[in-house]
Amino acid sequence: LLTVDSCVENVHFRREWFSPAMLGRRAFRVAASDLSAMGGSPRFVLLSIAAPGTLDSAYARRVVKGLIADAAAVGAFLVGGNVAGANDLAFHVTVVGSAKAKPILRSGAKPGDAVWVTGTLGDAAAGIAMLEAGASRGRLVSAYRTPPLRVDTACRLASTGAVTSMIDVSDGFAQDLGHVCRASSVRASIDLARLPVSAALRRACRSGLLAGDANSYALTGGEAYELIFTSAGDAKTEGRIRRACEESGCMVTRVGAMRRPGKEPPGAYARDGRALRGGFSHYGKKR
Amino acid sequence: LLTVDSCVENVHFRREWFSPAMLGRRAFRVAASDLSAMGGSPRFVLLSIAAPGTLDSAYARRVVKGLIADAAAVGAFLVGGNVAGANDLAFHVTVVGSAKAKPILRSGAKPGDAVWVTGTLGDAAAGIAMLEAGASRGRLVSAYRTPPLRVDTACRLASTGAVTSMIDVSDGFAQDLGHVCRASSVRASIDLARLPVSAALRRACRSGLLAGDANSYALTGGEAYELIFTSAGDAKTEGRIRRACEESGCMVTRVGAMRRPGKEPPGAYARDGRALRGGFSHYGKKR
Repeated sequence: LLTVDSCVENVHFRREWFSPAMLGRRAFRVAASDLSAMGGSPRFVLLSIAAPGTLDSAYARRVVKGLIADAAAVGAFLVGGNVAGANDLAFHVTVVGSAKAKPILRSGAKPGDAVWVTGTLGDAAAGIAMLEAGASRGRLVSAYRTPPLRVDTACRLASTGAVTSMIDVSDGFAQDLGHVCRASSVRASIDLARLPVSAALRRACRSGLLAGDANSYALTGGEAYELIFTSAGDAKTEGRIRRACEESGCMVTRVGAMRRPGKEPPGAYARDGRALRGGFSHYGKKR
Repeated sequence: LLTVDSCVENVHFRREWFSPAMLGRRAFRVAASDLSAMGGSPRFVLLSIAAPGTLDSAYARRVVKGLIADAAAVGAFLVGGNVAGANDLAFHVTVVGSAKAKPILRSGAKPGDAVWVTGTLGDAAAGIAMLEAGASRGRLVSAYRTPPLRVDTACRLASTGAVTSMIDVSDGFAQDLGHVCRASSVRASIDLARLPVSAALRRACRSGLLAGDANSYALTGGEAYELIFTSAGDAKTEGRIRRACEESGCMVTRVGAMRRPGKEPPGAYARDGRALRGGFSHYGKKR
């Protein structure tokens, strides 16, 4: 399995929001997340750095050390890379991985399948809003700074043989679920009330610390790096899914079901039929 | 074999100097060159694009098409990638390759080895100077725009089993040969008069079209993407090296020999003992 992902300054992050080690860890996790979403484990990592000449080389070394340490914890090794001059500080991370089972694609969801999501949604997007408002710590900020590493959970899910499709939430639940739906030619019917929202996010929204409501963050917030996946909807399969997640200490929530497209085109919809839209666009907004 | 390399706007290229297809081709060749230098063949390519929102998507598609076509000609396939917003236009290319023989490293040169270089040196660097002076065509400009693809030559060289070390010329002959010398703990003694210089480069320098002399371009000019390699210095080995290059239609020149370091530290030296210095530094100058 091969994947590449990037973290670009002022698009994915602001330098003052991260320690260098955190930035290295984040760059690895964001790229590894793509592999996890195929049921794979990261093995080898290449890091291509683009950096302005004004960047302290000690800073760059701390980024690399942060990446190496985080990768090592899941058995992956930095084996090469490149450094080039640039205006933007950017980290392009290639991950080579392996899958014990057959890789899981976006295109395997079937009508009748259950739709699942790991962890909680919207925390990272809320964390960005908090950082922009001047916060510097807390659960939401941490969710953005250090995305979850779902390698173990994804491998256990893949080993069940019951997962029919999977994707990671990078641009937002609605948008990424939409990719699965279109690739699988199905219509997702999502029970919005079931979207997993953390107590920290509910609290921040209720208290007025954050504009907007918790459910919108959960539905459209990017940078979550949780897994959306599908499986057959029967009780026995449900049990296997729940066990696999429990064994890896990962919360999982059944949030809806896949249907035949019918009149509506393939895509993500609420149970009332409303199309689910919104999420991060690289060319829509800037951080 | 795994490698990653990047082409960053205003560091490696100016956008107005290239058609989009040329840029894609160049991004592939620069990255594939690293693999060639290990005696490997590119197989799979990942392209991570960082691009400003103002970039026409048709332009990006033409870049990708240029890369795909050039890779296909040597049996390599674009299998994935990523697009992210950024201020700089940049292409980070990961190449996964394979080697039939044992991969050739920088660290295998031995005292007594002959030092070889493919093609001619300095043309690409001279081409950049010509572009900066307002030229838009010619052999030197082409050498920069479309680096040589030495996949076939490198594989044939590797198959001889006679190549002890190899590197590609990206930052300049002196600098890249220096990497081999230090990795191998040897001292290169180079006959500067033998550095292969094209008639076009000699002509441009003689006519005053270019400031500086042809030999300096050859010694320190970057972006050549030719191969520097070493082999045993005997006549039989020399014959095998010359045959391998001839079969792939590639010019090759024996330019010196490796010696024990002695009093001088490992590195690249002229025959008169002068240390060879200079070349491209990402944090020294800007294009």
